[in-house]
Amino acid sequence: MPQTWATSGVDLHLELAGRRVRAGLEAALRDAVRSGQLGPGTRLPSSRALASDLQVARNTVADAYAQLVAEGWLTAQRGSSTRVADRVGAADPAAEPAAPPAAGEPRYNLRPGSPDLSAFPRAAWLAAARRALAAAPSQALGYGDPRGRPELRRALAGYLSRARGVAVSPENIVVSAGFGHGLHVLSHVVAARGGTRVAMEAYGQPAHRDTVTAAGLAVTPVPVDGHGAMVAQFGDAPAALLTPAHQFPLGMALHPRRRAQAVAWARDTGGVVIEDDYDGEFRYDRQPVGAMQALAPGHVVYAGSVSKSLAPGLRLGWLVLPGGLLDEVVAARPLADRHSSVIDQLTLAEFITGGGYDRHVRRARLAYRRRRDRLAEALARDAPHVHVTGIAAGLHALAELPAGQDEDEVVARAAGHGLVVEGLRGYGAAGRPDRSALVVGYATPPPHAFTGALARLGALLAAR
Amino acid sequence: MPQTWATSGVDLHLELAGRRVRAGLEAALRDAVRSGQLGPGTRLPSSRALASDLQVARNTVADAYAQLVAEGWLTAQRGSSTRVADRVGAADPAAEPAAPPAAGEPRYNLRPGSPDLSAFPRAAWLAAARRALAAAPSQALGYGDPRGRPELRRALAGYLSRARGVAVSPENIVVSAGFGHGLHVLSHVVAARGGTRVAMEAYGQPAHRDTVTAAGLAVTPVPVDGHGAMVAQFGDAPAALLTPAHQFPLGMALHPRRRAQAVAWARDTGGVVIEDDYDGEFRYDRQPVGAMQALAPGHVVYAGSVSKSLAPGLRLGWLVLPGGLLDEVVAARPLADRHSSVIDQLTLAEFITGGGYDRHVRRARLAYRRRRDRLAEALARDAPHVHVTGIAAGLHALAELPAGQDEDEVVARAAGHGLVVEGLRGYGAAGRPDRSALVVGYATPPPHAFTGALARLGALLAAR
Repeated sequence: MPQTWATSGVDLHLELAGRRVRAGLEAALRDAVRSGQLGPGTRLPSSRALASDLQVARNTVADAYAQLVAEGWLTAQRGSSTRVADRVGAADPAAEPAAPPAAGEPRYNLRPGSPDLSAFPRAAWLAAARRALAAAPSQALGYGDPRGRPELRRALAGYLSRARGVAVSPENIVVSAGFGHGLHVLSHVVAARGGTRVAMEAYGQPAHRDTVTAAGLAVTPVPVDGHGAMVAQFGDAPAALLTPAHQFPLGMALHPRRRAQAVAWARDTGGVVIEDDYDGEFRYDRQPVGAMQALAPGHVVYAGSVSKSLAPGLRLGWLVLPGGLLDEVVAARPLADRHSSVIDQLTLAEFITGGGYDRHVRRARLAYRRRRDRLAEALARDAPHVHVTGIAAGLHALAELPAGQDEDEVVARAAGHGLVVEGLRGYGAAGRPDRSALVVGYATPPPHAFTGALARLGALLAAR
Repeated sequence: MPQTWATSGVDLHLELAGRRVRAGLEAALRDAVRSGQLGPGTRLPSSRALASDLQVARNTVADAYAQLVAEGWLTAQRGSSTRVADRVGAADPAAEPAAPPAAGEPRYNLRPGSPDLSAFPRAAWLAAARRALAAAPSQALGYGDPRGRPELRRALAGYLSRARGVAVSPENIVVSAGFGHGLHVLSHVVAARGGTRVAMEAYGQPAHRDTVTAAGLAVTPVPVDGHGAMVAQFGDAPAALLTPAHQFPLGMALHPRRRAQAVAWARDTGGVVIEDDYDGEFRYDRQPVGAMQALAPGHVVYAGSVSKSLAPGLRLGWLVLPGGLLDEVVAARPLADRHSSVIDQLTLAEFITGGGYDRHVRRARLAYRRRRDRLAEALARDAPHVHVTGIAAGLHALAELPAGQDEDEVVARAAGHGLVVEGLRGYGAAGRPDRSALVVGYATPPPHAFTGALARLGALLAAR
C-alpha cells in the first residue's frame, strides 16, 4: 500500500507491498537520490527510527541502507550516521536518450540490396535449428575457432565448390558476419601490412567505401566500362575489390579478358583481389559464371553471404582466403567479435547439408527470374525510351533514363506516389556520374506488392 | 563411365556420366588447367573434333568452352582456336590451407570464463525461437537499426533496470556481439575522439587489453588492492574499464568509496567509465550489488552479455550508453558488422519477456552456488594452506598459493593429471604479479565432471 514517509524534512512516496518492502524502500531511496530529492550529504534517519516510522523490521531498513552503501548511493562511517553520498544525485541531462530513428516502411519499395524477406523459409530454418541443436556437442556453445564452426565450414566448402566453382577447403574459410564485416577485417589486415589504399569500382556500395576509409585507407576509384571494371587501373594498390559475376550496381559480368588481367595484376604486383560474389546464386539466362577465385586461389579472396540468398538479418557470410592472408585474418577477427553466432552457424550448416538451402535458392531463382521478366516487359511496354540493363543476373536492374529525365526528379516524384526507388548517383564514387539511371531492386517487395510497385514504376517512367 | 581423352598431346581423364556430360567436361578442363596439365597457351581441339572424339553433341563442347572462357580459364578469338589463358594454371602453393588448430578437450577443465555449457536450455531456447519467428514481421529479417531489434532493447531495458538497477531506456541500448565486441567499438570511438589510452585494471582479461591496443590506444594499468581498482590513478585517461561487481580475476567488489570516486573522476575530467558487468547475475551471499552506472548514467557505459548467463557462442551482449556517446557508437558500429543476428536477438527478447531467462539464471545461480560451496569445502579440507577468495559472486574463485608453491609448476603438474587450470600470472598487466594463485573456473565442467575435477584440484594443492 502506498504511503508517504516524512522525516528529516524529506517526503518519500513509498510502495511497500508484501514481501517487497525492502526492494521498495531501496528503489524509493535510489529514486530520491537520483532525482535530487535527497541532496548530497543529506543525513538519513537512523535505521531504528525509520523502521519504527514504517512499521517494518529494523533489519529491513539496515539491509537496505547497506545495499545502497555498497552501490555507492549512500555513505556510512562506523558509529556515525548514514548520508547521501557526495556528488551523486542530480538528474543527469547527458543521460537523455537519443531520438529513435524514423520508422515506417514505404508502401512500395524497389530499393536494391534486399531479397524478398517474406520468402524467408521460417519453418525449414527452425527445423534445421532443431536438428542442429540436437546434434551439437555442448562445447559448440562456447568460445570457438574464429574461423567459425567446422560443421559450417565443411558445408560451405562443399557448396561453394559445387555451386560456384570456388577452390576451397574447410580450412581456409572464415565465417563472417556478412560481406561488410569481412571487408572490415580485410581492410584492417591491409592497413596492418602497411597498405594505404584499396582500388574499388567507381560504381559500388557507398557503405563499402565507408568501411575501407574507416580503417584508415584511401579509395582509388576504378572506372567501369561496358566490360566491367577497368582493372588495368589497379596500379600499385595492395588490394582491389571487384564484383565480377554481376557488377554492382551497373550489372554487367566482368569480361573474361579483364578477369585474366586482374589475376595477372595480382600475381605480378602481389596485390589481393577481393571478389564480392554478392548475388552469384542468381543467374537467369545461362549457367552461372564461376568464381574468379578459382583462377588464382593464392591471390583472390572469395567473399559471399546469405544476405541475398536468405536474409541480411542473419548476418552470416564467408571469406575464402589464400594461405598467406588466412593467418592474418584469423588473428585480426577475434579482436572485433571473436566469431559469429554459433546457433546460426550450426543451423546454416544443417540447412545446407540437408538440401534446404539449394531448394530455397532454386525457388527464389525462379521467382526472381519471373519478376525480372515482368519488369523488363512492363518497362518495354510503358516506357520504351528507358533502357533496362544488367538483368542477366542478380536481384536488381539498371533503368537508364533518356536525356531530359532527371534522376533526382524521378526519385522525388516516385516518393510522392508511395514508391521508393534509388538513383544511380549515390553509388558513384567520383562526383556526378555521367549517366542518369534508377537502380531497381525487383526482389525487395513481397509478392502481393510487386504488381503494384511495377505499375507505379511504369507510370512514373512513362511520363516524360 | 570414365574415359581417357587423348588429343593435342594431352591426356585428360574424364568422368562423363548421364546428363552431367557438360559439367564433367568443364570440371575436367578446369582441373587440367589448374594442375598445369594444360599449360598457358595450349591450343584446344575444335569443338567439332572433341565432340566427335567424345561422342557427344558439338553444342555441349561449345557451351563448355564458352563457359570456361567466361570464367577466364580459356581464351577465344573470333575465327581462331580456343586456348588456355595466359598466366593461369600452375598449382598455387600460396593457396595451401593452414593447419587446423589443435583439437581435443581436456578431461577436467577448471579454466575460468565459461558457464556450464551442458546446462544451456536448448529446448526452451528453441521454443522461444519458434515463438519469436512466428511473431516477427518480415522486415525484421532485413538490415536494421545498428542498435539492434526494438523487441530486444525493450526486453533488456526492463530486465537490466529490474535485475541490475541500471538506469536505462530502450533508446540508449546498443546490442553488441558480446563484451569484447562492445569494447572494440568503444575503443574506436575513443580513438576517433582523439583519445590515446584507456585506464584498465592491472589484473584483467588479456584479450580486452589486446582489443584496446588493436584500436591504436595504449593501456594504463591501474593497480588493484583489497578494495578493488585504485581509481585515483585513472589520471587524465579519456576512458577507464572497471569490473565493479566482481573484479576479474581477483574477485572483490569495488568498495563503495571507490565507486563514488570513479564517478567523481568521470564528472570532473569528462572521462568515461566502462562498467563490465560480466557476471552480475551471480551473487551468492547477499543481494546483488547494483550497477554502478545508475550513479551517473551520463558518464558510465554499462556493458553486459549472455556469455556467462547462457553461452558465449551466442555472441550477444549490450551496451547502455550515455547520450553523448550513443550517436558515436551507433555511427561506428555499422562499419564493423551492422548489427547482431536478428533471429538470435528476437529469440533472446522472447526468452526474457517469457520468463525463461530469469528461470534459467535462477537455476544456474543455485547450481553454481552449490559448486562454489563444494570448492571452498574441498580446499579447506584438502589444502587448508590455500587461501580461497573472490567467492561471493561469479563463476570463478581465486586460490592463493602459499609461499613455496609456484603457480606455473602447479599448472604444469595439473596438466599432467588431465586437469586444466590457469595461473593468475597471465591476467597481470605489469610483468610478474606479486602473488601466486590459480584462477579456478568452477562453472566450466559439466556436472558429471565436477566431482572429479574438484578431487584432482584438492589432491594437486594438498601436495606441497
